[in-house]
Amino acid sequence: PMAWGTAPRQSPALPLAPCRAFSNNKIMVELDESSGIAMMKFKSPPVNSLSLDFLTEFCISLEKLENNRACRGVIITSAIPKIFSSGLDITEMCGKSTEHYAEFWRAVQEMWLRLYGSNMVTVAAVNGSSPAGGCLIALSCDYRIMVENPKFSIGLNEAQLGIVAPFWFKDTFVNIVGHRVAERSLQLGSLHPAPEAHRLGLVDELVPEEKLQEKTGAVMAQWLALPDHARQLTKSMMRKVVLDRLVAHREEDIQNFISFISKESIQKSLRMYMEMLKKKK
Amino acid sequence: PMAWGTAPRQSPALPLAPCRAFSNNKIMVELDESSGIAMMKFKSPPVNSLSLDFLTEFCISLEKLENNRACRGVIITSAIPKIFSSGLDITEMCGKSTEHYAEFWRAVQEMWLRLYGSNMVTVAAVNGSSPAGGCLIALSCDYRIMVENPKFSIGLNEAQLGIVAPFWFKDTFVNIVGHRVAERSLQLGSLHPAPEAHRLGLVDELVPEEKLQEKTGAVMAQWLALPDHARQLTKSMMRKVVLDRLVAHREEDIQNFISFISKESIQKSLRMYMEMLKKKK
Amino acid sequence: PMAWGTAPRQSPALPLAPCRAFSNNKIMVELDESSGIAMMKFKSPPVNSLSLDFLTEFCISLEKLENNRACRGVIITSAIPKIFSSGLDITEMCGKSTEHYAEFWRAVQEMWLRLYGSNMVTVAAVNGSSPAGGCLIALSCDYRIMVENPKFSIGLNEAQLGIVAPFWFKDTFVNIVGHRVAERSLQLGSLHPAPEAHRLGLVDELVPEEKLQEKTGAVMAQWLALPDHARQLTKSMMRKVVLDRLVAHREEDIQNFISFISKESIQKSLRMYMEMLKKKK
Repeated sequence: PMAWGTAPRQSPALPLAPCRAFSNNKIMVELDESSGIAMMKFKSPPVNSLSLDFLTEFCISLEKLENNRACRGVIITSAIPKIFSSGLDITEMCGKSTEHYAEFWRAVQEMWLRLYGSNMVTVAAVNGSSPAGGCLIALSCDYRIMVENPKFSIGLNEAQLGIVAPFWFKDTFVNIVGHRVAERSLQLGSLHPAPEAHRLGLVDELVPEEKLQEKTGAVMAQWLALPDHARQLTKSMMRKVVLDRLVAHREEDIQNFISFISKESIQKSLRMYMEMLKKKK
Repeated sequence: PMAWGTAPRQSPALPLAPCRAFSNNKIMVELDESSGIAMMKFKSPPVNSLSLDFLTEFCISLEKLENNRACRGVIITSAIPKIFSSGLDITEMCGKSTEHYAEFWRAVQEMWLRLYGSNMVTVAAVNGSSPAGGCLIALSCDYRIMVENPKFSIGLNEAQLGIVAPFWFKDTFVNIVGHRVAERSLQLGSLHPAPEAHRLGLVDELVPEEKLQEKTGAVMAQWLALPDHARQLTKSMMRKVVLDRLVAHREEDIQNFISFISKESIQKSLRMYMEMLKKKK
Repeated sequence: PMAWGTAPRQSPALPLAPCRAFSNNKIMVELDESSGIAMMKFKSPPVNSLSLDFLTEFCISLEKLENNRACRGVIITSAIPKIFSSGLDITEMCGKSTEHYAEFWRAVQEMWLRLYGSNMVTVAAVNGSSPAGGCLIALSCDYRIMVENPKFSIGLNEAQLGIVAPFWFKDTFVNIVGHRVAERSLQLGSLHPAPEAHRLGLVDELVPEEKLQEKTGAVMAQWLALPDHARQLTKSMMRKVVLDRLVAHREEDIQNFISFISKESIQKSLRMYMEMLKKKK
């Protein structure tokens, strides 16, 4: 296993402290107790799409780390080349029952509530493209480092699919890039290539792929140098308004999702989109 | 009539699709039904000032387009050289009755509510200076392209005249340039030359005058490539808070305007300003 | 006494208009009635820390100027080399009674309410480092000019001390640099060197130390060129939401401060910090 975080630059072959990894199906989680840094690696081929199973596993993993006092920071990255996460799994939104839609949407909300509200330092190491829900995961972290490959893009491109990003996706986005950039990007459903994403503030830093691990470790070390308690309260102060808004409107948001996704016109366009994806292969 | 919008770059002399133009006094409106793009051209000499008549015509024209399913986008520009719009017509605010002030202000509100809340794609082709209310029109569109002439300036310069921009002018401005830039610019009543306006994010793009038509068409085509419904819902999600604030306080805002504008000190400074404008000619 | 404000650039040895200076212990205040510009110079060695006495004097001085119709603008700067203000005086927060904490915190609130809500034009001439409460003073002005020395830094670094910046420090900060920069900077408790502070928008302008006086005067002249009434109403419109939030939660905020600062863990870390400062000398 790799040693993210506090590994000194000069010794890439550093012997590792004992590591607790819990085995998962779709997400590899490794906690280095000596540094207090965990790594969550998405490993759900072909494109790390956020299925109900994936989201459930994500929430359980995050909760375990959150409750583990040995863990202070989490790095989120992908084990699959070229893709960070392709976002919400469209098969979960197509031709399913109302109950299924409700369960799925609740899991999406849960994922965001846990990640955006996490007490741990969260750093996204975006090593591939990251549309829609994949982008939301990156946006919900404390810091985003992206591989500087212009073929990798990131954005909330829901509008391109005829779908509207939920208000809490929008709130998270606005908090990072401001109202003007968000308004334009969301209306156009833009996927921003890495250099543009950096220029807009959507990601904080670009690095060559081979430097991603080192850089992510350095950033994490910088954040972990702060006393946890003050940092956590400060984070909560910054994010509470937006988190509370979803908590207050959670059931309403689920109903909105169900009634929107159940429309025949939406179902049709999702089916067409899936057909197109299949042909691409 | 000119062909904005989808005209391919290589054929400027493209034969036009049948065009419905409705004749107006102060605003020329042309709808190209083949592309779904309408053009509103302000043509109210000498400076396209926003008189009650102008505003009424603007609202009616916009409503007609909004209700016409053949129309998906509107380009707003000026037919008068060097000036986009000089803003609210001061003669409407000077030496008139309370009833007149109320009617005038309601028309200003109506114009903004319709334009900022429009379901259509709205692009401002700012081909001249655009102070105060003229700036508001540009700010209310989805995208602003300005001729890169540094002699053309844009801004909410009300404070220069001893007037305060209404809260919804301010909200629209803050949504685009952020709180800090807005606070400074509004307090100083700044008119920003085109290059500065671009640097501040007040306009999205600068082009040489001869490229304005082509560029506006290309931008409109990009926005119209999106499915209308998702784009409209996204736009509404971004703007609803600010629109609702005026709707909730509309009568109060009218009363504020009347009591402010009726003050002798304000009337005096407006008269002096008009005298100065007359002498300039 | 120096002539800030309207002194023309070509005549640094300009004979001064009659000046009313009121003598103080910790803050030197000079009002040039001919220009309407007052200068407040912090002169409380060694580091202009914001003790209860300092804050009280600050509020009284500001109130006097506010009520003096001859005064339209205030320049805030330091008479002590290399330091603008070191922020809240830690001795006021360490080993004192609950009553003392309450009185101290009320004075901190009062200072901000008066300065952020001032009707006068306020310009910070930041001629030294400005952490925490010192930064808040600069943030509360209308405009910030900082000496371009990269050894001078500015920021809300409370988190570094294990303390959380109050919500109204945060609101003031967000209004200037936006949500994203604020979130990161507050969580990391960053002290930004002058060039970085400028890049982030935390200060508006950098100048060489020898140009600070001239530049501050020029900026003040620009702001005073506007009619007071419209500028004041505009400023109030921009800041009212944030000011009202503290006014509405003032007692609660005092209680929060007391219960936080009274914690043994916080007292311990403040004591350690003071020990460290003593050793530094």
